Amino acid sequence: MKALVFDNTLKLDNNYPIPEPKDGEVLIKTKMVGICNTDYEITKGYMDYKGILGHEFVGVVEKVGKGVSKDLLKKRVVGEINLACEDCSYCHKNLQRHCPNRSTLGIYKKDGCFCEYFTLPQQNVIVVPDCIDDISATLVEPLAAAYEIIEQIHIKPDSKVAILGDGKLGLCVSLVFNALNIDYVHIGKHEEKLQITKNLGAKTKLLEELKETDLASFDIVVEATGSVNGFEKSASLVKPRGILVLKSTIAAKEGLNLASIVVNEITIIGSRCGQFKPVLRLLEKGRIDVKPLVSGIYNVDDFESAFKKNQDKGTLKVLVQF
Amino acid sequence: MKALVFDNTLKLDNNYPIPEPKDGEVLIKTKMVGICNTDYEITKGYMDYKGILGHEFVGVVEKVGKGVSKDLLKKRVVGEINLACEDCSYCHKNLQRHCPNRSTLGIYKKDGCFCEYFTLPQQNVIVVPDCIDDISATLVEPLAAAYEIIEQIHIKPDSKVAILGDGKLGLCVSLVFNALNIDYVHIGKHEEKLQITKNLGAKTKLLEELKETDLASFDIVVEATGSVNGFEKSASLVKPRGILVLKSTIAAKEGLNLASIVVNEITIIGSRCGQFKPVLRLLEKGRIDVKPLVSGIYNVDDFESAFKKNQDKGTLKVLVQF
Repeated sequence: MKALVFDNTLKLDNNYPIPEPKDGEVLIKTKMVGICNTDYEITKGYMDYKGILGHEFVGVVEKVGKGVSKDLLKKRVVGEINLACEDCSYCHKNLQRHCPNRSTLGIYKKDGCFCEYFTLPQQNVIVVPDCIDDISATLVEPLAAAYEIIEQIHIKPDSKVAILGDGKLGLCVSLVFNALNIDYVHIGKHEEKLQITKNLGAKTKLLEELKETDLASFDIVVEATGSVNGFEKSASLVKPRGILVLKSTIAAKEGLNLASIVVNEITIIGSRCGQFKPVLRLLEKGRIDVKPLVSGIYNVDDFESAFKKNQDKGTLKVLVQF
Repeated sequence: MKALVFDNTLKLDNNYPIPEPKDGEVLIKTKMVGICNTDYEITKGYMDYKGILGHEFVGVVEKVGKGVSKDLLKKRVVGEINLACEDCSYCHKNLQRHCPNRSTLGIYKKDGCFCEYFTLPQQNVIVVPDCIDDISATLVEPLAAAYEIIEQIHIKPDSKVAILGDGKLGLCVSLVFNALNIDYVHIGKHEEKLQITKNLGAKTKLLEELKETDLASFDIVVEATGSVNGFEKSASLVKPRGILVLKSTIAAKEGLNLASIVVNEITIIGSRCGQFKPVLRLLEKGRIDVKPLVSGIYNVDDFESAFKKNQDKGTLKVLVQF
């Protein structure tokens, strides 16, 4: 089968062996895959991962391993990306995403979905309702990461909320917050990207329009820029005793000063992968339209163009068809 | 009067004018002052502060301004260091420590207590019960900063807790946690400092004794080292979805990687000044013995030796008598 493999270089292998589903697993035939910045970071050395890339997908169950109901066959599915042991204190609390024994699809110790066929444990796959199209289904994983914020903190009806960053991460948060009727202002650098939020009827502000009075004025700020400057700007916007949600991994190479976090007693909450089901419920109800986030759809044979497009300035989500 | 003034250099002024208490203020005659690392940092440029240093004290009310009850006269007092407006949303919530209009004794826009006489608003002063000696009273401020953690987070009886750092900040946290019957392990680099915790009957561990199994094993870690390495070590000890309490301001000059905070969805809580009253209750009950923390007591005329001692390796609290 075709498989996009990273092994110091990124290349399309046309003769990668099709895996066999083990007991309790399903074999999925890939329909569409999304390129995530994590994929790009892996090609730069993140997680020291070697293998098939990819963790955002929609596909169809092609084959089931022993112990898996045949009802799943031919069903269109998405899948949670953390493969957990189901036997530790985290798994028992339904926190498989934090299982210390986990592997992660296309990121850590488990081949990804950037290929024609791949396996997942049956408990990871979720059937996609027919009314949700393939593009929306492929975006369930990043939308779930945005929805994770709602699992972690209580956003009150009158909370003063800001999202900082108008890349695809910030826009996913914006789509989810809008769908959940949260009153927020989306702050970014790019008028054309903020337009997506504006079209939802939500408030936007260019970074350069921020005033002195915006400082220390928000109960909750979601940092989605991934830059050190963005982190420090986010921290400056949070009220004393407020919350800064850290959605993007930040490696501060220039020096990061946490003094204001202590002085203003800010709570920083790291936030990563989320549950898929609440996002599927939103998509089923038609409360999220992901189309404005899609910058291009490529065929897998043209993966080089897809990855190139992903790095272009202004690009949001790049999808790859199989 | 004698006043220790920082104005690019630190010097003892023997003819500083005695201030007059304004309406609602008291004039305090200083008995004893503690040297805090913040004082030292101010002499290195922190907060751009110029003026009389000092914010940890015990003294006696010498004079009261208009509107202040004469009952306070001759009373021995300690005082909260943030001078608030009492008229904003923070003050209304009893969070004067976060009042945006505040000045701070010896740190920001308000002369400190490193002098023979100084003023404070009456609402900042708290009468010290006779059974609490001057040394203990002088340490109420740093102990209140340790107690602040208890105000901010819920430490359950079975929470797995660590304090990282065995300087005076970490030791103050240790004294408070021990007094409150919290089960914790105090981790540090210095056997002789950890001995203070050990003498309380609490658990200690040298940093070099930490094992692989200690990683990601604590529900709550209090970072009290003030170093970038200490921060990263603390983060590595916190369980996924656990809490890292940041007690010390950290300026990461070498680069600080927050990726693990996101991946493990750790909550970082900045923590600063605390309320004095709960600490006074503990001291009154004899639940905290501060003597092991005192490294030396100097006369104000010998302030140079006191500050030199404060910077010596192994020094804990240095006190200055007036």
